[in-house]
Amino acid sequence: MSSSLEKHPSFQPQDPNYRVRVENSFARQRAMTTLKIALARIEPGEIELTFPYQEELTQQHGFIHAGILATALDSACGYAAFSLMPPQAAVLTIEFKTNLLAPAQGDFFRVVGRVVKPGRTITVCQAEAFACRQSQSKLVASMTGTLMALFDREDIQH
Amino acid sequence: MSSSLEKHPSFQPQDPNYRVRVENSFARQRAMTTLKIALARIEPGEIELTFPYQEELTQQHGFIHAGILATALDSACGYAAFSLMPPQAAVLTIEFKTNLLAPAQGDFFRVVGRVVKPGRTITVCQAEAFACRQSQSKLVASMTGTLMALFDREDIQH
Amino acid sequence: MSSSLEKHPSFQPQDPNYRVRVENSFARQRAMTTLKIALARIEPGEIELTFPYQEELTQQHGFIHAGILATALDSACGYAAFSLMPPQAAVLTIEFKTNLLAPAQGDFFRVVGRVVKPGRTITVCQAEAFACRQSQSKLVASMTGTLMALFDREDIQH
Amino acid sequence: MSSSLEKHPSFQPQDPNYRVRVENSFARQRAMTTLKIALARIEPGEIELTFPYQEELTQQHGFIHAGILATALDSACGYAAFSLMPPQAAVLTIEFKTNLLAPAQGDFFRVVGRVVKPGRTITVCQAEAFACRQSQSKLVASMTGTLMALFDREDIQH
Repeated sequence: MSSSLEKHPSFQPQDPNYRVRVENSFARQRAMTTLKIALARIEPGEIELTFPYQEELTQQHGFIHAGILATALDSACGYAAFSLMPPQAAVLTIEFKTNLLAPAQGDFFRVVGRVVKPGRTITVCQAEAFACRQSQSKLVASMTGTLMALFDREDIQH
Repeated sequence: MSSSLEKHPSFQPQDPNYRVRVENSFARQRAMTTLKIALARIEPGEIELTFPYQEELTQQHGFIHAGILATALDSACGYAAFSLMPPQAAVLTIEFKTNLLAPAQGDFFRVVGRVVKPGRTITVCQAEAFACRQSQSKLVASMTGTLMALFDREDIQH
Repeated sequence: MSSSLEKHPSFQPQDPNYRVRVENSFARQRAMTTLKIALARIEPGEIELTFPYQEELTQQHGFIHAGILATALDSACGYAAFSLMPPQAAVLTIEFKTNLLAPAQGDFFRVVGRVVKPGRTITVCQAEAFACRQSQSKLVASMTGTLMALFDREDIQH
Repeated sequence: MSSSLEKHPSFQPQDPNYRVRVENSFARQRAMTTLKIALARIEPGEIELTFPYQEELTQQHGFIHAGILATALDSACGYAAFSLMPPQAAVLTIEFKTNLLAPAQGDFFRVVGRVVKPGRTITVCQAEAFACRQSQSKLVASMTGTLMALFDREDIQH
């Protein structure tokens, strides 16, 4: 049985400098440093982040808090979208939806965000978070996010 | 013109000790301490949290990161649901959906979560986050969350 | 105990002719006629629709299909947003999220959509569906929807 | 570049008779007949539906109404989940979230739903809707849905 879910295409960045632009913007997200979430991979329309398990970020059962997962998933979606935007665009999240699929237990976490549908104004992304321990990787959360490209907003710089 | 959105009812807690139960569980959420998110009010089916603006939790434009808002919104939903559950229940988030309505700028943030529909297994909540500055308060994000009551799970204690 | 969920403001329409504009666009939604969904009330930023129970629109347990509820909820959100837009705008749904709160059983259904946050490009709405029988009304589904105002698109006319 | 989104596993049905069970339940969804939505394929954890373009189901611009897409997407998710449930379970939708990615124009529509995470009580699915014209197929909408298995509910029969 082959999957009938259509293979998503690969994307051409509008900005050849997309990688540096993503790195610079990500570096300005103070929350990423605070939560020890790091950029692991940048492709056109696809971003991978990683972060270690941290007791300081757990909920009452000792799992990583769903909102912390959402923080990484949202950044993965946002920078996947941002990687395909023109140089002068800023990116803002309009909304996201997260499903928690399994307890977020592991040594470290891998979060992959990918553009599903790019657009001039609106870009839709999906992301998945995996809890990793040694060679094992388990899907623990997913997100669908809607991002907007902003132009000419003085208060919001890319 | 009066609103036709029906007034939601007030709720009777199943556990007269709901307040202490919420406080104790909240105190075990290490992420709340780390992010300086505090319990401000506990009512049956309604929870209010507050936290100060913190540069360490911002995204690239200096606003509080959407995922940090989601963290507070999710805890507000979770404990609103938990306050109506029987003593032996643990609560887990199944999914949530957040809309970012305005830049999260302010001196401090107020997050109110409320049960929309309680249930034996599934409880649905809504929450709103407000950015506050002096006497002003602005709605910056909303969440709808679906929570599940868990019983007899050895790996998950309430 | 008074609710701490902030009261949402009333809205001023940009187009004094908003009512006729909503009626005309709604009349072009062929799906509304087919599903017997009718416009019951138009206010600035708030729309009420009604439709009768119809066996032809049920799922396997005899309740109204969740997608039919979503159809009415989406139209209620869309026209609530549309009522506040300028005359030359068309409205498109970007995304919506629906919670099914109780079985959709009743003699007829009332669906109320309301703008939560209007915007030049993006408007966020919430809607609720009530199952009605004689004098009783029960909340059966809720929606949060994100709508976009479109301008100057030849293929999409308002 | 190979995708880093993990390949989802294939599923083993608990009920060897899953196919007939899906067909029988689907046949009782009166809304499917009314909207001319047909079962095209049943696999363990994966369902494909098709329906023709129908003017009677359009919104104001002549595209298929977002709620009609949601109806098909929800049924695809629901039966994908149902195909993996034990014989005595009934399935109900808890919530779904739909993104509208492109105008739903085409000769016919293909909707594929797939289980992402099966569970004893909660199953999470994703679905995609494609607008088809001759040999072309375009992704027009996606859904993430959360389904619940119900047991021993007299009012709800599978």
